[in-house]
Amino acid sequence: MLNIKRYNTTQPDFDAQLVQLLAFEGAQDAAIDHVVADILADVKKRGDAAVMEYSQRFDRLSAKSMSELSLPKERLEEALRNLPAEQRDALEQAAHRVRTYHDRQLMASWSYTEEDGTMLGQQITALDRVGLYVPGGKAAYPSSVLMNAIPAKVAGVAELIMVVPTPDGQLNELVLAAAAVCGVDRVFTIGGAQAVAALAYGTESVPQVDKIVGPGNAYVAAAKRRVFGVVGIDMVAGPSEILVICDGKTDPDWIAMDLFSQAEHDELAQSILLSPDGAFLDAVAASIDRLLEDMPRKAVIRESLENRGALIQVKDLDEAVRIANYIAPEHLELSMDEPELWAKKIKHAGAIFMGRMTCEALGDYCAGPNHVLPTSRTARFSSPLGVYDFQKRTSLIQVSKQGAVTLGKVAATLAYGEGLQAHARSAEYRMKS
Amino acid sequence: MLNIKRYNTTQPDFDAQLVQLLAFEGAQDAAIDHVVADILADVKKRGDAAVMEYSQRFDRLSAKSMSELSLPKERLEEALRNLPAEQRDALEQAAHRVRTYHDRQLMASWSYTEEDGTMLGQQITALDRVGLYVPGGKAAYPSSVLMNAIPAKVAGVAELIMVVPTPDGQLNELVLAAAAVCGVDRVFTIGGAQAVAALAYGTESVPQVDKIVGPGNAYVAAAKRRVFGVVGIDMVAGPSEILVICDGKTDPDWIAMDLFSQAEHDELAQSILLSPDGAFLDAVAASIDRLLEDMPRKAVIRESLENRGALIQVKDLDEAVRIANYIAPEHLELSMDEPELWAKKIKHAGAIFMGRMTCEALGDYCAGPNHVLPTSRTARFSSPLGVYDFQKRTSLIQVSKQGAVTLGKVAATLAYGEGLQAHARSAEYRMKS
Repeated sequence: MLNIKRYNTTQPDFDAQLVQLLAFEGAQDAAIDHVVADILADVKKRGDAAVMEYSQRFDRLSAKSMSELSLPKERLEEALRNLPAEQRDALEQAAHRVRTYHDRQLMASWSYTEEDGTMLGQQITALDRVGLYVPGGKAAYPSSVLMNAIPAKVAGVAELIMVVPTPDGQLNELVLAAAAVCGVDRVFTIGGAQAVAALAYGTESVPQVDKIVGPGNAYVAAAKRRVFGVVGIDMVAGPSEILVICDGKTDPDWIAMDLFSQAEHDELAQSILLSPDGAFLDAVAASIDRLLEDMPRKAVIRESLENRGALIQVKDLDEAVRIANYIAPEHLELSMDEPELWAKKIKHAGAIFMGRMTCEALGDYCAGPNHVLPTSRTARFSSPLGVYDFQKRTSLIQVSKQGAVTLGKVAATLAYGEGLQAHARSAEYRMKS
Repeated sequence: MLNIKRYNTTQPDFDAQLVQLLAFEGAQDAAIDHVVADILADVKKRGDAAVMEYSQRFDRLSAKSMSELSLPKERLEEALRNLPAEQRDALEQAAHRVRTYHDRQLMASWSYTEEDGTMLGQQITALDRVGLYVPGGKAAYPSSVLMNAIPAKVAGVAELIMVVPTPDGQLNELVLAAAAVCGVDRVFTIGGAQAVAALAYGTESVPQVDKIVGPGNAYVAAAKRRVFGVVGIDMVAGPSEILVICDGKTDPDWIAMDLFSQAEHDELAQSILLSPDGAFLDAVAASIDRLLEDMPRKAVIRESLENRGALIQVKDLDEAVRIANYIAPEHLELSMDEPELWAKKIKHAGAIFMGRMTCEALGDYCAGPNHVLPTSRTARFSSPLGVYDFQKRTSLIQVSKQGAVTLGKVAATLAYGEGLQAHARSAEYRMKS
């Protein structure tokens, strides 16, 4: 028997219980932060020598030069060639679909000219160089390489540099193959805070990048937070979550497995189901108990569901939508009729999986949209990773002779109001010309 | 005589000199950070009571309830009505132009349906509630209220809450009038880390927001960094900068005044001029000396130009463009013929002011584009503040029965490869249906 929490929104303390259920403090460990600060400063100062020392210390790699800590592109191609055909096809199909979807996110420059000839606009450019962090060991997911690398390449990033730690020299062939599929340009087999530092500051061998993306452990996250500003970073993700809203008419086994698919990620992952149908919640609970034993990752699933999962009975689907908008979930499954009508009522979510046929796992791998999504209620103010994270905007202003007069008067008035006389004067010079 | 640095790119040590010139360490003061952490924790715990205590301590406001620390909308309207007509017109014209430009940045939802009926898309929504920090005292700029508030309102943010400290009860009428022009919804006369905390966590009186934008002092910046993740924040800006590229054919007085207009902001502001024409650089230096005495803020201008300014002779305009792309300036003036051709070669800049008639001051106030721009080389990876900072994206996925089969196979193959069996299983359930 798995003890998953049960709630009913009619309980007088439901709101407080919900706040409690969602509470998650992303612990920022002071000791980790201190170690990371030292490593960053050391790599900034000593470059390659420091990177090689830390790789020796943490990954037991005794490289005599940085060339020993890098992989040629041929090695990636080789990994791809050697994959079983089924895996290679799956990777390539997934990459193709992800690319097709992300192509639609490309931003284009625009401008307009006013009657007096003044032109205003916005010029779009790609980042020059991006660093992609890929974790080593068991958390190394080839799908994550696809999801981070493809938007950068679609945006037009000229150089994509992957770093991946290889403790004791162990390489993950699926990850290398995924890098080949996405056109990663260079690979260094370094990891941890030293890899983040190398990318952020540059060393003799590792070129400085403009942005660092990709998941990592607590050291990597702390390092990314610290170098933010020197380079751009993606979001620092919390534990993964799914919220399922079901009208009670989907096979309860399907829903149980969808909850499992989130819970199997790690013990802190959160799976919540909302339904107006109490008997359906009972049925899902029964499915959970029956199906759990057969899952290879059952220990992780059990801990996640017991500590952070919940089955919640709501009054109706409208109430479920209100709760979803409060939670702003990373993944939202709308397992109900006419999901397109309900999706329009969702104001905050990373991704919406609409209809009974759309399980979240499809979005993780190959549907097309990105699987890097805002967690921990941050979908209130942030978006999935996308091409727009690798493009940027520059404002364009070209005023005509007449525009300089009209606009100069307004600017000068406001500048004098703010006590900024040089601002006013530089506008006035052009008015008199 | 003002001692502004002179360089020539032919100097053998020029690259190192340029790095030195641009070097700026945004000091993150540990003492400030410690004070801020305490204030944040206190407001999170005690709400209004703590906010009122800090307002008493820092702003000498002895409020008995939070209603004494808020302003009704009528007070904003009154400030606008009481402005001299010229100032009111200037504010309203500026707001109109900023709104017109920002309207073009609105993102729209999109979707497409594949042959087998699978639908993919992206749904755009606005943030619900945004907090706008406005500094008190001398650094309170009405133009900054326009530039932060208008994009939020264009995006469709339902509630825009302004906080502005009023030390000793002192109100800035221009700032209040600007808030009226932009449709700010609520105003609290609170500031510092306590205001950031109130917005980020919510109190009995101040509703929790989803994002906090706007400039502030070191305490405000430290508080914003700390609440990032609970709420969104805009960038933490460094000192303002301008890079002017001139072919030598613009009136040197104009260019000198443009450099002043940046330098007068504060002592750390940076003004750099690049020109292939050495005699022109001499002429600008002479203009600087001649015009400086007449500037009310000459002490600030002198310190800024002597410590952080530079006149640099380049080989040609192509070299100037290469240097500009390295610097990635916040403001870039292209004071030359055919600026539209040269602008296309600029890869990194916050805003480009094209042609001799376009001084930066117009962009600060009323041209239309935003004046909140990436500083300190961050234009390599970030953009001006815009409507897109107040909208967010949600991925939409609705697979058809056929799509569930095709995609399920790919997803299951990749999921097994990653050892995530529940992912595979939940896809496979739908394949068999």
